[in-house]
Amino acid sequence: MNTMQVARKLVELDGQGKNDEAFETLYADDIVSVEAFVAPDGSHEARGKAALKAKHAWWAGAHEVHSVSVTGPWPHGDRFVLGFRIDVTVKETGVRMQMDEVGLYTVKDGRIVREEFFYEADG
Amino acid sequence: MNTMQVARKLVELDGQGKNDEAFETLYADDIVSVEAFVAPDGSHEARGKAALKAKHAWWAGAHEVHSVSVTGPWPHGDRFVLGFRIDVTVKETGVRMQMDEVGLYTVKDGRIVREEFFYEADG
Repeated sequence: MNTMQVARKLVELDGQGKNDEAFETLYADDIVSVEAFVAPDGSHEARGKAALKAKHAWWAGAHEVHSVSVTGPWPHGDRFVLGFRIDVTVKETGVRMQMDEVGLYTVKDGRIVREEFFYEADG
Repeated sequence: MNTMQVARKLVELDGQGKNDEAFETLYADDIVSVEAFVAPDGSHEARGKAALKAKHAWWAGAHEVHSVSVTGPWPHGDRFVLGFRIDVTVKETGVRMQMDEVGLYTVKDGRIVREEFFYEADG
């Protein structure tokens, strides 16, 4: 698949809530996933499918997702951008919030090898 | 200015139609501006302020802009993303269209050193 085919498939599967299928079929084994937020220990990357799966599991456990809206894709060469609006409640605090962020994806050999999320990490 | 200060100033000036002021005050002399569309001769980059100014002048001459809507910024480290919707008529053909694209900007020492535009370049 070329960049746009990967992008459209990701939008399709995410839109259907099939995140696990997207993860298994569209992500490279050596995926690097980078958050805008840098943790106090300096970490903001998950490297490899196992690490990213753990991040997803943490996120799913810590949040109740009410709805997800995906916009895009906007392509440029081997990269594409998606927009996300996520209506979510943080389970620990009970605070409901509207997350508004952008994902920048890099594709190589038909798989996503890098994803970087853009959002205001410090208010 | 840090990344978000540059980003917000760019949104503010672009939103007021003050593109020239944004260009003069926020862009680095060695700016590289990259389009998703690759011309038949392989070029898709403008390097340096003079080249980018020429690109802007060509664009302004070839299009009648009816309105511009800017969304964002979404930051990540030294980069940020903006969304653009531009209602425009191509002067040569008279065709009016809604451009929908994303800009990815890189900031260094308080100036924009790289901008890359994401959109469907070949339908």
